[in-house]
Amino acid sequence: MANSKKVIWRGGTQLAPVPAVLVGCGDQRRWKYNLITVAWCGTVASDPPQLSISIRRERYSYAPIAESGEFTVNLPDAAMVAALDNCGVVSGRDTDKFALHQLTAVRGSRVAAPIVGEAPLSLECRVVKTLDLGSHTMFVGEILAVQVSADLIDAAGKFDVERANLVAFAHGHYFDLGKCLGGFGFSVRKKR
Amino acid sequence: MANSKKVIWRGGTQLAPVPAVLVGCGDQRRWKYNLITVAWCGTVASDPPQLSISIRRERYSYAPIAESGEFTVNLPDAAMVAALDNCGVVSGRDTDKFALHQLTAVRGSRVAAPIVGEAPLSLECRVVKTLDLGSHTMFVGEILAVQVSADLIDAAGKFDVERANLVAFAHGHYFDLGKCLGGFGFSVRKKR
Repeated sequence: MANSKKVIWRGGTQLAPVPAVLVGCGDQRRWKYNLITVAWCGTVASDPPQLSISIRRERYSYAPIAESGEFTVNLPDAAMVAALDNCGVVSGRDTDKFALHQLTAVRGSRVAAPIVGEAPLSLECRVVKTLDLGSHTMFVGEILAVQVSADLIDAAGKFDVERANLVAFAHGHYFDLGKCLGGFGFSVRKKR
Repeated sequence: MANSKKVIWRGGTQLAPVPAVLVGCGDQRRWKYNLITVAWCGTVASDPPQLSISIRRERYSYAPIAESGEFTVNLPDAAMVAALDNCGVVSGRDTDKFALHQLTAVRGSRVAAPIVGEAPLSLECRVVKTLDLGSHTMFVGEILAVQVSADLIDAAGKFDVERANLVAFAHGHYFDLGKCLGGFGFSVRKKR
């Protein structure tokens, strides 16, 4: 850790690592179920719990999310990374991505949009704000419910994030998580 | 990868992994330089490149960012994780966090807010939208410039993200990145 010589580049989307998630949308009535891979997403508030996803208007998933105001965010595990990548490349216009990747669409508990049965953790969201940001439209979703794979809940009743083997995205590449470096507040606890 | 039994919880901020970054603010005139750790952040658009950070109004860094409209986002490496954690716990009201953690404040090239000299990569941002989301205020920042440690630029002129040893945050714990699982589009290239 040293103060190093810097090179200045023009602004770009180099924030990293970011999540890479499978966003579920559709209701099997007006819009068929679909999945779209999104890395432009993040948690944006704690109370009420909210996250944002950003999607280009020309994407097939834009209309179902914009018009229904509902979507799900499914965290993939490392075993799903090929499906995760592929759902960001092919279009739901001509592909049933659930079928193609043998993923199970399960209707949400609070939204009509589907969660991915195979995902370790899924967040069911309702759009509360929409922001046009140029290339992308940002949907801020209130997180109404979370569905967790029962076999990833530990003895203390918490989601076992290390065993879940989640995926991060950094500068065009997918990574799994490495070693745990500490829990929030460890730097203060250590000093006491 | 199997469709597993689910447990439904109430909505919470379980999107993971998310970035955990040191946000720099202040101008050494109206507000002294300060750092605040932010995990509620993400990329929100590609063109113009924009990211969001969310901060509670009661935090000391809120006013400098809201009033100056400038901040920096500094990606820490694993060696900086104790400073990263601590800058989320102590307040700039009574602590010079740069001095405490022996970090170097360097005035931005496009904003008056400081970057962290020791960070592998820093993004200089100007606020273009502000959104009140309840517990947190979201600042959408256009990324005006990026400063990269020269010793992390590889032979091809790209930022060497694996060597940078970046930090992710998931369910209250910091992690480094593990193994690379593939580059964007690998699932299609493989099939061809």
